[in-house]
Amino acid sequence: MAGMAAGVEQESVIFAPKTAPPAKIAQLLIYGARVILVDDNYDAAYQLSLEATEEFGWYNRNTGYNPFTAEGKKTAAYEIWEQVLLTNQLDKPLCVFVSVGDGNIISGIHKGFKDLHRIGQIKHMPRIFGCQSTGSAAIYNAYKSGKEDIIPVIATTMADSISVNMPSDGLRALRAATQTDGAYVAVEDEQILEAIAELGEVGIFSEPAGATSLAGLKQALADGMVGEDDPILVLNTGSGLKDVKAAMQAAGEAPVIKPVLDEVKKLLGS
Amino acid sequence: MAGMAAGVEQESVIFAPKTAPPAKIAQLLIYGARVILVDDNYDAAYQLSLEATEEFGWYNRNTGYNPFTAEGKKTAAYEIWEQVLLTNQLDKPLCVFVSVGDGNIISGIHKGFKDLHRIGQIKHMPRIFGCQSTGSAAIYNAYKSGKEDIIPVIATTMADSISVNMPSDGLRALRAATQTDGAYVAVEDEQILEAIAELGEVGIFSEPAGATSLAGLKQALADGMVGEDDPILVLNTGSGLKDVKAAMQAAGEAPVIKPVLDEVKKLLGS
Repeated sequence: MAGMAAGVEQESVIFAPKTAPPAKIAQLLIYGARVILVDDNYDAAYQLSLEATEEFGWYNRNTGYNPFTAEGKKTAAYEIWEQVLLTNQLDKPLCVFVSVGDGNIISGIHKGFKDLHRIGQIKHMPRIFGCQSTGSAAIYNAYKSGKEDIIPVIATTMADSISVNMPSDGLRALRAATQTDGAYVAVEDEQILEAIAELGEVGIFSEPAGATSLAGLKQALADGMVGEDDPILVLNTGSGLKDVKAAMQAAGEAPVIKPVLDEVKKLLGS
Repeated sequence: MAGMAAGVEQESVIFAPKTAPPAKIAQLLIYGARVILVDDNYDAAYQLSLEATEEFGWYNRNTGYNPFTAEGKKTAAYEIWEQVLLTNQLDKPLCVFVSVGDGNIISGIHKGFKDLHRIGQIKHMPRIFGCQSTGSAAIYNAYKSGKEDIIPVIATTMADSISVNMPSDGLRALRAATQTDGAYVAVEDEQILEAIAELGEVGIFSEPAGATSLAGLKQALADGMVGEDDPILVLNTGSGLKDVKAAMQAAGEAPVIKPVLDEVKKLLGS
């Protein structure tokens, strides 16, 4: 939002928890946004931004509040349709794995697929799988309970972009799975770190939230929720450059040597 | 290179100075490259990688050493031709501003324009302007001297990607300017930080090396090397997410408040 606002010379005020990764805060500041860091969690920053919007009469662009965000995010479904469904005659529904925090991306994608299905462009409605960290699993918990009551949690995950106590688009996010014969899965942060490393090995550098979908797929395979012969698509929702600390946790450290060949030999010999 | 190697399951060994920004090192590690950090500067890491390549019989992909890197980088000239020159009937040569460290990007771009000019696709050969930090200005110094002797410096710039004592592609980089009626300009790191902030205000987030070209343009305008009526193109060669520390220096800090509306009012009133 900060970048787009800068591009059209629109002032923006952005609330974030002060624990947000430095790269994300730096980016907001560089784009000239008025950044207000809140000495509390994401939910508190979100709540405060709602109050401030009302107090000052601002336009509210919050995820799960402003209806246009889901309209934007649903274009991801159009891209999947254009790049995958149109060019592959799948005889089973595509299984789409999406990381879920507030639940706005998965809601938008569900809406996009519903649009396409309604106008007859999709034969099999894709099955949508929401992936959460066990450290921020309010929607997963509701899914497991079989009810539509979403109860806040105390979020503890290191996956910053999906760390939320009370998802602001939770109900629609839940229905994205329950209405498409999908499901919710929850994974440990350790599994997310492993998924970051695994994505890196094939040339994809994702932030923790971005890799949660792959971790979720692996969990779903292990649990038999999808099979090896199901057509599967995994969404990566964020660049790894946005959370260097997490990347270092996933990748480990590199050795430091003196600039002499013998040191290289010693290192590679070991 | 680490990402591409991962994509084709090719092993890679990458030498870097241990002072490289954490985001860049994290990215290499995540892609599964064997990363060797050298307790010295870029030139020492470069030199050590040459020795190791010879010792172990590796394929050498070093900038300014492997001839294919310039072939790759020259495609930027093709993109400029396709997106700017083909669609605009310019009656003056396009002035292209490029940040310069090793000098491989500017050399590749020069080569690309020469290709297009040779086959009659470019009417006016673009004028190429090399932009260096005064803290790493070996090629600029040679340009000023009017000779083709490039003398090493002790690099001190904070613009990591163009920080080099002895440019490995210096001679071709110098000629990119001298053979096209271009020039070299040098700017202070302070001007680079200002350029980062200025780019951010229009929605572009660049690393220091990436913003050096804009700082160079402003210097060239101030010095009358180009005029307001010259058609001008500025290349940004790197994402700001790769150097968060530098971004923070350019953008300053954000205030931290308690999650109450009164704090917001106080902040915005001030």
